[in-house]
This record gives sequence, C-alpha cells and structure tokens, in this order.
Amino acid sequence: MARTTGSHAGITGPKVRQTALKLFAQDGYAAVSMRRIAGQVGVQAGALYNYTPDKQSLLFELMRDHMTDLLDQPVEDGDGPPLEQLERFVSFHIRYHADRPDEVFIAYMELRNLTPENFAEIEKLRRQYEDRLEAILRRGVEAGDFGVADPKIVTLAIIAMLTGVNTWFREGGRLSLDEVVAQYWDMVRKAVAADRR
Amino acid sequence: MARTTGSHAGITGPKVRQTALKLFAQDGYAAVSMRRIAGQVGVQAGALYNYTPDKQSLLFELMRDHMTDLLDQPVEDGDGPPLEQLERFVSFHIRYHADRPDEVFIAYMELRNLTPENFAEIEKLRRQYEDRLEAILRRGVEAGDFGVADPKIVTLAIIAMLTGVNTWFREGGRLSLDEVVAQYWDMVRKAVAADRR
Repeated sequence: MARTTGSHAGITGPKVRQTALKLFAQDGYAAVSMRRIAGQVGVQAGALYNYTPDKQSLLFELMRDHMTDLLDQPVEDGDGPPLEQLERFVSFHIRYHADRPDEVFIAYMELRNLTPENFAEIEKLRRQYEDRLEAILRRGVEAGDFGVADPKIVTLAIIAMLTGVNTWFREGGRLSLDEVVAQYWDMVRKAVAADRR
Repeated sequence: MARTTGSHAGITGPKVRQTALKLFAQDGYAAVSMRRIAGQVGVQAGALYNYTPDKQSLLFELMRDHMTDLLDQPVEDGDGPPLEQLERFVSFHIRYHADRPDEVFIAYMELRNLTPENFAEIEKLRRQYEDRLEAILRRGVEAGDFGVADPKIVTLAIIAMLTGVNTWFREGGRLSLDEVVAQYWDMVRKAVAADRR
C-alpha cells in the first residue's frame, strides 16, 4: 500500500486529524500515543509535529472544528413561526450528528481530557449552539405557541434526546432516518406545546 | 498512610472495583493497566488476580453489576394508571443515574471495549430495563392515555433525555434535583400525551 510520507502537507494534515479522530474514538485519548498516530498516518513520529504542536492541540482542534462546523451550518435564520424554526432545528440536529458518530462520541467522552482553557473554549461554543435552540423556544413562548417553563432546561433535554439517536440508529435498520426524524419531531412538538390538561 | 495488603478479601475486592471504576472513568479502559489499579489499591500487581481474572472481567463486572443493581430496584410494579407508572419511572431514572455518574459514563463509553460475548450480555440487560419503560408506554396506549406511535423509539428517546441530566446537573446549582425531575416529568408527560392538535 502506498504511503503518504509527510511531504504533502495538504494531504497529510487532514490525514493526521482523521487518524487521530478514529483512534481517539476507538481507544480513548489517554491510550493513544503520538507515535501510534504517526505510524498509522505513515510518517515518522517527529514529522507529526509539523502538523500539530502536541496531542492536546490535536484533541482540542478536533473538538473545536466539530463545534465551529456545526455553528457554520445555515440551519436557522429566525424566519417563520417558532414551530417551523423548531422543526428545522430538530431535523438538522439529528441528521448532522448521525453523519458524524466519531466526532459526537469524542465531543462527549473527551471533555475530561481537555486542559481547563481548552475546556472553557469548547464549552463556550457548545453554549452558542444551545443558545440557538433556547432562542427558538423563547420566541415560541413569547408568541404563546409553546408552554415551556424553563427554556434552558428544555434546551438541554431536547439536545440530549436528539443526540441520543447516535447510540442506536443504524442505516438500513427498521426505520429510515426520515422516519426517525418524524418520530422525534412528534415528541419534541408535543413536549414544548402549551399545556391543555 | 495505611495499606490494605490484599489479605482482607472482603475489603480489597470492593476497593479493586471502586478503583477500577474511578480510573476507567477518568482515563478510559484502554489507558488503564492492571499494574496501575494494583498500585492505587495498594497491592502487588500479581495479587490483583486474586480478585479478578483480567481487566476485561473487571470492566464487564462493573457494567453488569450497574445494570443488575438497576434492574433490582423496586421501581415499577405495574400498579396504578400508566401515567403514574411513567411518572415513577422518570423520577426514579433521573435520581438513580444522577447518583452514579462514573457508572453511567462507563456504561456508555466503554461498550466498545467489551468482548462480543460480554457486549451481548450487557445489551440484554439494557434491553430488559428499556422493556420496562416500553411496557408502561404500551399499557398507556392500550388505555388510550398515551399517543405514542412507536413505543420502542419513544423509550429510547426518553431514556436518552433523562440520562442526559448527568452531563450538566450539579448539586448546589440553580435547580434542585426535585425541580429537575419536575421539569423533565412535564416534558415527558406532554411528549407521550394523546395528540389534541
């Protein structure tokens, strides 16, 4: 098998990150050495430092880029009724995360291995994303469409529920992703509805 | 500091398991050696094998016991209206898991490190627990109290939502655990309600 030998930064850089992502997801950050990443990429251990200053930076960049890519998605423009905004958010969130199982797994699992500064940075980005959903919920409450006592808590609950699809969904299983999205949307729609007991 | 030297199996056995739990949760299964566990317990590496045949057994037993303890809890006797059964389940699930953050973290994170046989065993136990919630939902649907199209999916969604409390709840924070339970119950109650659009 041909080896990329580190002379092509444009190829090797992404390969370093993909390899680190795969190994971190498989064995955990603490168990993966820079030497092992280098070996799988096909470069000398020393050459790896042309692409990243250290393992912590590699982890941080993977987690940061996962969050900034997420925040860059043009999902929600605040247009239309809050219920439609919420439906778009739910559909987007499930599909986006189902496509990136390793990134999602690491985003949750490896928070413990970030330095305090890096942790704070990731938390800030995560909160920015949560704030988008919270803003939709607040607009719906103001419009009288939603019955949500604590939009912050409902935000966290909805995100956990939607991301949980990753723990069981398999392409080609009993339900298509479209069907899954429809089922979850039905739950979310009802969970935030104004109460009519 | 006094050392337990392995001569007291009744003390050292649980200490081995608690130490392994803490280290696995902190650094991940793959990064933790039996030697390191022995060092923290205060026994020779060789003595550890009096308590467990190997690291895989240690992981499996931690995950299995977490599930069997969970299944042993007298939470749901099938008595009363389905809505009340569901409320008891929600309250129990949040409180039980909030009390065991390391066990819950490992139960999710380390599934990938179980042998196929051990994985199948843990999955069986997990499904038994999920089946309890699913049974409540089915009883509610039969009684006409719940509007749930796919009880299996709603089960997984509710469990992910409730367990997600562990990722953000801190004792002494803005909300007490009682308040958190009340908020989540409100969402679950509405999410499974018969539709009245």
